[in-house]
Amino acid sequence: MKPLIVLNLKTYLEGTGEGAVRIAEACRAVGEESGIEIAVAPQLCDVYRVASQVDVPVYSQHLDGVGAGSFTGHVFARCVKDAGAVGTLINHSERRVNLADIESSVTAAKGEGLRTIVCTNNIATTAAAAALGPDFVAVEPPELIGSGIPVSKADPEVVRGSVTAVERIDADVKVLCGAGISKGEDLKAAMELGSVGVLLASGIVKAKDPKAALEDLVSLI
Amino acid sequence: MKPLIVLNLKTYLEGTGEGAVRIAEACRAVGEESGIEIAVAPQLCDVYRVASQVDVPVYSQHLDGVGAGSFTGHVFARCVKDAGAVGTLINHSERRVNLADIESSVTAAKGEGLRTIVCTNNIATTAAAAALGPDFVAVEPPELIGSGIPVSKADPEVVRGSVTAVERIDADVKVLCGAGISKGEDLKAAMELGSVGVLLASGIVKAKDPKAALEDLVSLI
Amino acid sequence: MKPLIVLNLKTYLEGTGEGAVRIAEACRAVGEESGIEIAVAPQLCDVYRVASQVDVPVYSQHLDGVGAGSFTGHVFARCVKDAGAVGTLINHSERRVNLADIESSVTAAKGEGLRTIVCTNNIATTAAAAALGPDFVAVEPPELIGSGIPVSKADPEVVRGSVTAVERIDADVKVLCGAGISKGEDLKAAMELGSVGVLLASGIVKAKDPKAALEDLVSLI
Amino acid sequence: MKPLIVLNLKTYLEGTGEGAVRIAEACRAVGEESGIEIAVAPQLCDVYRVASQVDVPVYSQHLDGVGAGSFTGHVFARCVKDAGAVGTLINHSERRVNLADIESSVTAAKGEGLRTIVCTNNIATTAAAAALGPDFVAVEPPELIGSGIPVSKADPEVVRGSVTAVERIDADVKVLCGAGISKGEDLKAAMELGSVGVLLASGIVKAKDPKAALEDLVSLI
Repeated sequence: MKPLIVLNLKTYLEGTGEGAVRIAEACRAVGEESGIEIAVAPQLCDVYRVASQVDVPVYSQHLDGVGAGSFTGHVFARCVKDAGAVGTLINHSERRVNLADIESSVTAAKGEGLRTIVCTNNIATTAAAAALGPDFVAVEPPELIGSGIPVSKADPEVVRGSVTAVERIDADVKVLCGAGISKGEDLKAAMELGSVGVLLASGIVKAKDPKAALEDLVSLI
Repeated sequence: MKPLIVLNLKTYLEGTGEGAVRIAEACRAVGEESGIEIAVAPQLCDVYRVASQVDVPVYSQHLDGVGAGSFTGHVFARCVKDAGAVGTLINHSERRVNLADIESSVTAAKGEGLRTIVCTNNIATTAAAAALGPDFVAVEPPELIGSGIPVSKADPEVVRGSVTAVERIDADVKVLCGAGISKGEDLKAAMELGSVGVLLASGIVKAKDPKAALEDLVSLI
Repeated sequence: MKPLIVLNLKTYLEGTGEGAVRIAEACRAVGEESGIEIAVAPQLCDVYRVASQVDVPVYSQHLDGVGAGSFTGHVFARCVKDAGAVGTLINHSERRVNLADIESSVTAAKGEGLRTIVCTNNIATTAAAAALGPDFVAVEPPELIGSGIPVSKADPEVVRGSVTAVERIDADVKVLCGAGISKGEDLKAAMELGSVGVLLASGIVKAKDPKAALEDLVSLI
Repeated sequence: MKPLIVLNLKTYLEGTGEGAVRIAEACRAVGEESGIEIAVAPQLCDVYRVASQVDVPVYSQHLDGVGAGSFTGHVFARCVKDAGAVGTLINHSERRVNLADIESSVTAAKGEGLRTIVCTNNIATTAAAAALGPDFVAVEPPELIGSGIPVSKADPEVVRGSVTAVERIDADVKVLCGAGISKGEDLKAAMELGSVGVLLASGIVKAKDPKAALEDLVSLI
């Protein structure tokens, strides 16, 4: 099976505005060359810009479980969809939300046909998130995020344990893993541990040549 | 002096995606006819879309005081600016932030040349917000938001008292008022109470004809 | 099986300070008469006062998943335990926390031998909470809290569905239900739906005679 | 003028339960010897325990601006008062709240005759907090908290500037300073910079002999 790769641009300067478009273009190109789905998650204000200019799957970095109405500053599923996104991250460790809101966000996103990736920090919360029925749970030990030390090497058990726990709760939910991932061997290891893909960020976005870094990432698949 | 009008689209369906563009176009047209600045605050994912398609001042509904870096799901001033906004709301009653974050958001927005409107709920918090040196403080008693009862009629003292309090703290900061504003007489009353403009939402966005509603709004100036 | 009854005093004036002690004393008396466990959840500043003066099981209304250290204003499990509590509510709808914090709070409470009741709002979040392995999940549809309309009558399916979902995830976790519960028939209905007890508040705390109200509550068991 | 010293016990193990009582007793003894007011801010669940056992001014570490009612897990001013506190910290950097809530907390605390110390992080937020009319604003640069480097030495300008800014806004509000304070010379320097006292924590609580550390603290006044 081909993996899913989701590149989170966070608020990196290299991935803001025109930079987001450039990196999205690298994702598109390497995705096309390799036949592997490489999605990009730009900042909220860049979702429309990227989605309207680059033929690449776009994810929102956040989505609120609110409907239409008096919700100033909130991220409304319909708006994310209209802007051209195909999915969304929910509950990233840098944008945690409460349990009831994760559930309403998953429901709101599904209502618009958006794919959902709920981020979690350990096996227990991964199991909990799986019970909400998202498309993916992305487990990322916070202490490894941005560390350059791949979770697949530093803590393979959190990935393996997450896969087992999720299977028991809902076999339709798939596991991604993240934190410290940037190289081809990291992605390969992540797949061997039972995850179906990776969520990654700085290792690619801040690479001297993001396109080359992406090419390395998919080189062992 | 000509007022500033800021139309907050919240997550209203009528103001999402193509709807945001349509209402922004009405703001532009009535602004041009009347010579009055009518800005629009669309959802985050619509900022670029509106700003790149309509020649109207665009405000973000929210902005975080974060820099470039690991801030997934946050609203980075540089990205808001690159998307074409000229300013931002901060601390709207539907998106409250803590005091330290209001300050860092004002600083971050100013660093990008964005105009700042800090929203508050009473005279005391208006005075506090003024001490942070934003361009505007917009006082809105939460119980009147969306009520259809204009603050200028229901609670003129909160507007007058805010103007007095702000003058004492920093004469360069101007006061907007909001909550329940939709008609020409509301705007006129707001100006007479010493505010320099209004922040409004449902009264226009959900009007049968938003352009006609805006024309009525500016008719007595 | 005998039910567990947990009486949440919220910030009701009748349940503050000396009032908390008086209501706790009613819980103790009716618990003793009936042989049913009636616990009380006073405000944080009343935990020690109630626990040191009344021989009744005391729960904290909230607990943070923090350890010893620089956590001003947080609720540390060791302190709750030292103050005499035997358990804690976590994630009440009036004090929601994020998923990672629910998990760390459950872990912290267990580490001190405190019983854990994670509050949830629907079947999906109940299943998710069960995956974290607390002693109890208390499902309470927020729209019924304080309504006087018992969840067991208004929405029996949310209780039955929660019981089924929790059994599938972890049979050691038990289900409480809450919202609108105050009478003997409500408790009886709640038990018949498969829950092992109830979480309740205003119906007892604000009753003219809380002791008589508690006697009515347990009268059909 | 004699300074005000407020010792924040945070969730330090040494300042939990019986430990809180022991340290409060040291505050009482040194306060009595020196004639200087030394208050203690224990954890919420320790407020009643300390206040009922030691004759020392007790502050809460946090207080919510809520009234009586459905506010599970919130810190109600009446309960804090009934538990024996004389004042409260509000908006500590480890327990930030939004601007509207700082204002309502100050108002709620005052309504119960509790003294209010609003914590802030720089000159601008100190000025803003002063506009809310608390008894004290305690400025603490977050990066120095727990550092062992006293703010009075590392950043005297933030203290001096805060004093000037507050005087301009409301001369009835007094300035405390904090972060890295533990020695007699730190307190002396803080007073010379125009503050009326200090907020401190680890330097005393984690000292081998907290009583001796407090005696050193007041030795140069």
